[in-house]
Amino acid sequence: MQFHLNGFEPGDPEIFDRAERHPASGAQGSVPAEVDVLIVGCGPAGLTLAAQLSAFPDIRTCIVEQKSGRLLLGQADGIACRTMEMFHAFGFSERVAKEACWINETTFWKPDAGQPANIVRSGWIQDVEDGLSEFPHVVLNQARVHDLYLDLMRRSAAKLEPHYGRRVLGVQPAGRGSHDGARRVTVTLERLEAPHQGEIETVAARYVVGCDGAHSVVRRSIGRELRGDSANHAWGVMDVLAVTDFPDIRCKSLIQSASEGSLLIIPREGGYLVRLYVELTRLDIGERVANRNITVEELIAKARRILNPYRLEVKEIPWWSVYDIGQRLTDKFDDVPAEEIATRAPSVFIAGDACHTHSPKAGQGMNVSMQDAFNLGWKLAAVLRGRCAPALLHSYSLERRAIAGELIDFDREWAALIASSQGEAGGADPAKTQSYFIRHGRYTAGTATHYSLSILTGEPVCQNLAKGFVVGTRFHSAPVIRLADAKPVHLGHVVQADGRFRLFAFATAVDPAASGSPIRQMCDFLAESRDSPVRKYTRPDEDIDAVIDVRAVFQQAHRELALEDMPALLLPKKGRYGLLDYEKIFCADVRGGNDIFALRGIDREAGCMVVVRPDQYVAHVLPLDGYAQLASFFDGFMLPQSDQDARRRGEAAVA
Amino acid sequence: MQFHLNGFEPGDPEIFDRAERHPASGAQGSVPAEVDVLIVGCGPAGLTLAAQLSAFPDIRTCIVEQKSGRLLLGQADGIACRTMEMFHAFGFSERVAKEACWINETTFWKPDAGQPANIVRSGWIQDVEDGLSEFPHVVLNQARVHDLYLDLMRRSAAKLEPHYGRRVLGVQPAGRGSHDGARRVTVTLERLEAPHQGEIETVAARYVVGCDGAHSVVRRSIGRELRGDSANHAWGVMDVLAVTDFPDIRCKSLIQSASEGSLLIIPREGGYLVRLYVELTRLDIGERVANRNITVEELIAKARRILNPYRLEVKEIPWWSVYDIGQRLTDKFDDVPAEEIATRAPSVFIAGDACHTHSPKAGQGMNVSMQDAFNLGWKLAAVLRGRCAPALLHSYSLERRAIAGELIDFDREWAALIASSQGEAGGADPAKTQSYFIRHGRYTAGTATHYSLSILTGEPVCQNLAKGFVVGTRFHSAPVIRLADAKPVHLGHVVQADGRFRLFAFATAVDPAASGSPIRQMCDFLAESRDSPVRKYTRPDEDIDAVIDVRAVFQQAHRELALEDMPALLLPKKGRYGLLDYEKIFCADVRGGNDIFALRGIDREAGCMVVVRPDQYVAHVLPLDGYAQLASFFDGFMLPQSDQDARRRGEAAVA
Repeated sequence: MQFHLNGFEPGDPEIFDRAERHPASGAQGSVPAEVDVLIVGCGPAGLTLAAQLSAFPDIRTCIVEQKSGRLLLGQADGIACRTMEMFHAFGFSERVAKEACWINETTFWKPDAGQPANIVRSGWIQDVEDGLSEFPHVVLNQARVHDLYLDLMRRSAAKLEPHYGRRVLGVQPAGRGSHDGARRVTVTLERLEAPHQGEIETVAARYVVGCDGAHSVVRRSIGRELRGDSANHAWGVMDVLAVTDFPDIRCKSLIQSASEGSLLIIPREGGYLVRLYVELTRLDIGERVANRNITVEELIAKARRILNPYRLEVKEIPWWSVYDIGQRLTDKFDDVPAEEIATRAPSVFIAGDACHTHSPKAGQGMNVSMQDAFNLGWKLAAVLRGRCAPALLHSYSLERRAIAGELIDFDREWAALIASSQGEAGGADPAKTQSYFIRHGRYTAGTATHYSLSILTGEPVCQNLAKGFVVGTRFHSAPVIRLADAKPVHLGHVVQADGRFRLFAFATAVDPAASGSPIRQMCDFLAESRDSPVRKYTRPDEDIDAVIDVRAVFQQAHRELALEDMPALLLPKKGRYGLLDYEKIFCADVRGGNDIFALRGIDREAGCMVVVRPDQYVAHVLPLDGYAQLASFFDGFMLPQSDQDARRRGEAAVA
Repeated sequence: MQFHLNGFEPGDPEIFDRAERHPASGAQGSVPAEVDVLIVGCGPAGLTLAAQLSAFPDIRTCIVEQKSGRLLLGQADGIACRTMEMFHAFGFSERVAKEACWINETTFWKPDAGQPANIVRSGWIQDVEDGLSEFPHVVLNQARVHDLYLDLMRRSAAKLEPHYGRRVLGVQPAGRGSHDGARRVTVTLERLEAPHQGEIETVAARYVVGCDGAHSVVRRSIGRELRGDSANHAWGVMDVLAVTDFPDIRCKSLIQSASEGSLLIIPREGGYLVRLYVELTRLDIGERVANRNITVEELIAKARRILNPYRLEVKEIPWWSVYDIGQRLTDKFDDVPAEEIATRAPSVFIAGDACHTHSPKAGQGMNVSMQDAFNLGWKLAAVLRGRCAPALLHSYSLERRAIAGELIDFDREWAALIASSQGEAGGADPAKTQSYFIRHGRYTAGTATHYSLSILTGEPVCQNLAKGFVVGTRFHSAPVIRLADAKPVHLGHVVQADGRFRLFAFATAVDPAASGSPIRQMCDFLAESRDSPVRKYTRPDEDIDAVIDVRAVFQQAHRELALEDMPALLLPKKGRYGLLDYEKIFCADVRGGNDIFALRGIDREAGCMVVVRPDQYVAHVLPLDGYAQLASFFDGFMLPQSDQDARRRGEAAVA
C-alpha cells in the first residue's frame, strides 16, 4: 500500500475521504460508578489491556484518557515480530502486515576512510533471522495501532469505548466496606472538556491499572517511582516526507558520521514517510533538552550534515520532537510491598511507560508496554471470572519487572553504542554496532523473553521432549496440516486472545486408533479422570474446551490418519446443537518439508504435552503420560469449577 | 475463524453483537437524473463493476437493485483462485482468506463393491495443483462477498451506495438530443418500498449494464435471450449445521451412491456450516422442479440415503432451494448487432447470469460473473475518462462471450458426469469423475481463461521470451524481492484495480548501470521518445505512472544492484512534492529458490517486456527493445493525451 504521497494524513488510508479516515472515538456520558477494572491511559498498554478485557462480556471495564480524543500521529512506531504474534491473537495481524512498512534489512554506515566527511555503507544485515517468527518486523504509526485496538473494542462483547478528557485526581487504596465484601479502589477523575469541564467523577473499581505514562499518577498513588539514570544525551526525532539520494532510505539504517553524530533512519508505512532520529548533543548533568529551545530546522540541518555527501530535501514534517530520556525503572509493578505478598493480593497495577522509560531508538517501548498488558489482561480476567485465585496477580509484577530490567540494561548498552561520542562503551565503531545488533536480534524481535520458574512456569525437567518449545518463552509456532480439511495452518495461530490455556499433545508414531495408544490414553485421562484439569476447571454447562483447549499433533501425513479413529475429546461436541469441532487435530507438514517434530526438536518416540498460557507463553513441557504433573501444575493457580462452592465463588467475583 | 456454532448469523462474524453485523446499506433519496453508468442489479457482477467504477471520482455511477437491502444469506459460495487474485487487486483478499473456508482437498466416494448400499472413499486429490496461484480456492457466502464490495464502495472516491427497491420498467435506447451531444440511454425505474412505493424515476445514462440475473430486463430490452438446453435434472441445495460421522465433511466431497443419486459436499466458512447439493430426480421434458413441491425434509432424507452407512443429523437449515437450471447462453453481451460493430459502439451491456446460466455445482457462476464485470469495468472507465475510444467497448462481448461459451460446455459435461443416471456421458463412474476433475483443475480455478488475438491481445510471436506469461491469460504472479527495501513481495500484487496498465520489464543480466544496458535504453525510450506510449497517453499534469505503470525486474540478487545506478524512470518523482516512488524495481528471489526468471521461463539473454491489462491479463510479450511494437499496441486503442484536442475530448467525455 502506498499513501501519504501528497502529504501525511492520519487515519485509515483505505478510506478515500480524508475527513472520514478517523471517525469519532469515545464514550458519551459519565464514567460508571462501579467497574471491575479501571484502566488509566489510552496508550499501547492501556488499549491492549482494554482490548483483552473487552472479549469478556461479564467483565465491566472502563478506560479513561486525559487527551480529548484518539491519537492521530507521532510517538512510537516499531512493531516487533513478537508483537505481530500477539496481534494475530487479537485478530488484526493481517491488517498490520498489509498497511505497515516491513523492516527486511538493516544497513550500517560509517565515515569514509579516505574522506571522513562523507559516509559510506559499512554493512548490510538481514533484520530478522530466518525462522525466528512467521511474522515480519514492521513499522506503523502508533496512532494506527490504537485505531485497530479501538475498532476491536467497539466490535467486542463489551462494546468498550474510552472515556476521553479525564484527569486522575486521586486513587484511594482498596478498603472493605462495599456491600458485597469485595475490596474496591476509589479513583477520582476530573473532566477536562467543555461543557463538563471541572466536573468530578468517582469510580469504584475492583482493580485499577495505571497505563498513564512516565508521569503516572497511578504510580505515584501507590508510592512507587521511576529510578535510574538521568538524561545525558539529547536526540531529535522527526517524521518527514523528503527527497533524498541516500540509497538506503527505505531500509532501517544506522549512520555514524565522523564528527556530526549519529542518525537512525526508520522507513515508515505508505512508501514515502521516513522517521529520522538525530543525535543532537551531550547534556550537562541535570540539564533538560527542552531548555535548549532546539528547532526543527536545527534537526534537519544536523541530519543533512550527517548524511553528507547525500542530499536531503525535507518537504513536510508531520511530527517532530526532542527528548532526553535516560533509563529508568520502578521496583515493583503493583501496590503490594514485597513483605506483604503472602498476605494480600494486589489491586492496583502499573504497566508500560509508567514502569519503565528508556530511549525509543531500539524500537522496544511500545512492544514491551503491550506485552506488559497482555501478561496482565488474562490474569485479571481469570481472577474476575472466578477461574483463578487472586494470588495469581502477584505473577504480573514478578514476570514483567524482570523483563523491564533486561530492557533497561539493553537500552543502556544500545543507546551508548549508537551514540557517536567516543569513550564509554566505545561508540561509533560500526563493526561493533553491527555485531551487537546481530547478537541481540532475538531480543529486539521480542522473542527472547523468558519467564522464570513460578506457579505459571513449570520446571523444565522434560525440556528435552520438545527442545524448541522452551518453557518460559513464547510458543514458537510452526506449520502443520489440519487433519479434517488438509488446510495448511500455523499451529500457534490457534492461540487467540480469549483467556484460554492450550494443551498441545504431540503424539508418538503409534497408530492413534490402537486402544492403548498414548494419545488415546491421554485423551481418556483428560476426558474422564476426576483429576483431569479439563474436567476440574470447566463448568458443567461450558464447552469442554472453554478453559483448557486440547489439540493434538501427529507425526503421520494427513492421508495416513483416519478422522473416524480419533478419540472423542479431539472431536468435541460443542454449542447448543452439539456440533463437532473439527479443528483440534493436526499433522506434520511432511510434504512441505516443514515437519514440526523436526523444527521444534520433539521426541518422536515419547511425544509430549506442551501447555501454553493465554498470552502465548510455554507454561510447561511434560511427558504424554505426565498426568499427575499436569494436574498439579493447574492446581497451583486454578480454582475447581465443578462443585457448588466454586460456582458461587465465581459468581460473586464477577458480580 | 470459527463461527455459526450456535446457529447461522449473517454478516461480519468479527462483530460480537449480532444486530450490528450487517449495518444498513443503501443510498437515501432519489436516483440521480443523469449518470455516466447505470448498473442494474446488486449481485456479484453488478457489485464488482460498481466497486471498479467507484475508484474514479470523476465517473458518476449509480447501481440499483430490486431487493430492499443487502443480501444476508444463501446463493453462491465458491471463490476460485483467480477470483482471489482479483480480490487482491480490490484490496480485500486477506479478509476473504481469513474468513472463508479453504478447499484444500477433494474426495470421491462410490458404492462399496461388497455392500453397494454403503459408500466408500474411492479417491482423494489435492484441490489446486501446486504453483497454480499464490491464492487458495475458498468458499464463502456470497452475501459476505457483497458486504466486502459494499464496504469498499462506501470507502471509495465515489462513496457509492446502492439504490435498493428499484425495478426496471424500461430501457430506452441511446439517441442524440442531450445538450452535450453525447448519447444517453434512458432507464425508467419503479420504486418498490414504502413510502415511495409506485413512484417512477428516470435516469439518463451514458452506459447501462444489466447485471440483473437470468430474467434480465436489460437483456430483454436489447432484444437478446438466453438460449440452450431446457432443464432436465432437478437438484436440491441446502446450507446446514449438522452432526455426522461422515469423515470428509470438511472436504469438498463428491459422493456417487449405487441407487440414490449423487451428493456434493461443500464445507463452508466458520468451521461448522456445510452446503449439500442433493441430486433429486430426472424431470420430464418441459417440467419444472418448482411444480413438484419438494420439501426440505425430502432433501435431508435423500442426503441421508446417499450417505449410508454414515449418519446425518441436521440441526439447522439457514437456507435451501431446489433448482433445475439447464445450460443457457445469450449470443452477444451488448446492444450492437454484429453487422453494426464497425459503425457504432455499444451503450448497453449485460453481465453475469443475464448472459449465461448453468448449474451451480462446479462453483463457477459467481466467479465468471465477477470476471465479466472486471473485464468491462476498466474499459468503461477508460472510455469515460477519455483514455480510449468507445470502440474498445466491443471487446467486452467479444472476450466474455467466448468464455461463457466454454463455461456452458464445461458445465454440460460436468453436470452429466456427476449426475448418477446411467446412460448419457457415462455418469456415476467415480474414476472417470476424478480424472475429469483433475484434468479440469485449471479451468475450475479460473486460470484457464485465454483471450483471443484482438486489439487488446497481441500476437504471441515473442511468447518464447516469457513462456510462463502466456499472452491472453491472466498474469501469473511469482515472488520477487523489492530492491529499495528488500521486501519479499508477489510481483502480480502491484496490479491493483485502478484502471492502469502495467509494463513489466524483465532485464537482461547486463549491469543496469552501464549506459548502453538494454533496460536503460528501454527507460530512455519510454521517458523521452515522442513515440513512447508512457509520454503519449499520460497528461502533462499527471504522475508519470498514472496510465502505464512501468516496473523492472532484475536477475541479480538485491545486494548486487545499486539503487543509485537505476534509470530515473524507475525512481519516478511523484505528487505535489516530487517524492520518489521506490516501489518500481524488483529482483529475482534468488536466495528463496523462487527465481521468477526460472519459474516463468523468461529468456535471461534477451529479457522482455510484458504488458498487463488493468484486469490482470497479459496483453503482450515483446522484446526489451520492441519499442515500435509496444507503441503500435497502445496506439490500437488509446487516445493521445498531450495535445489540446485530446484533452478537450477527455473532458467532454467525462462531463
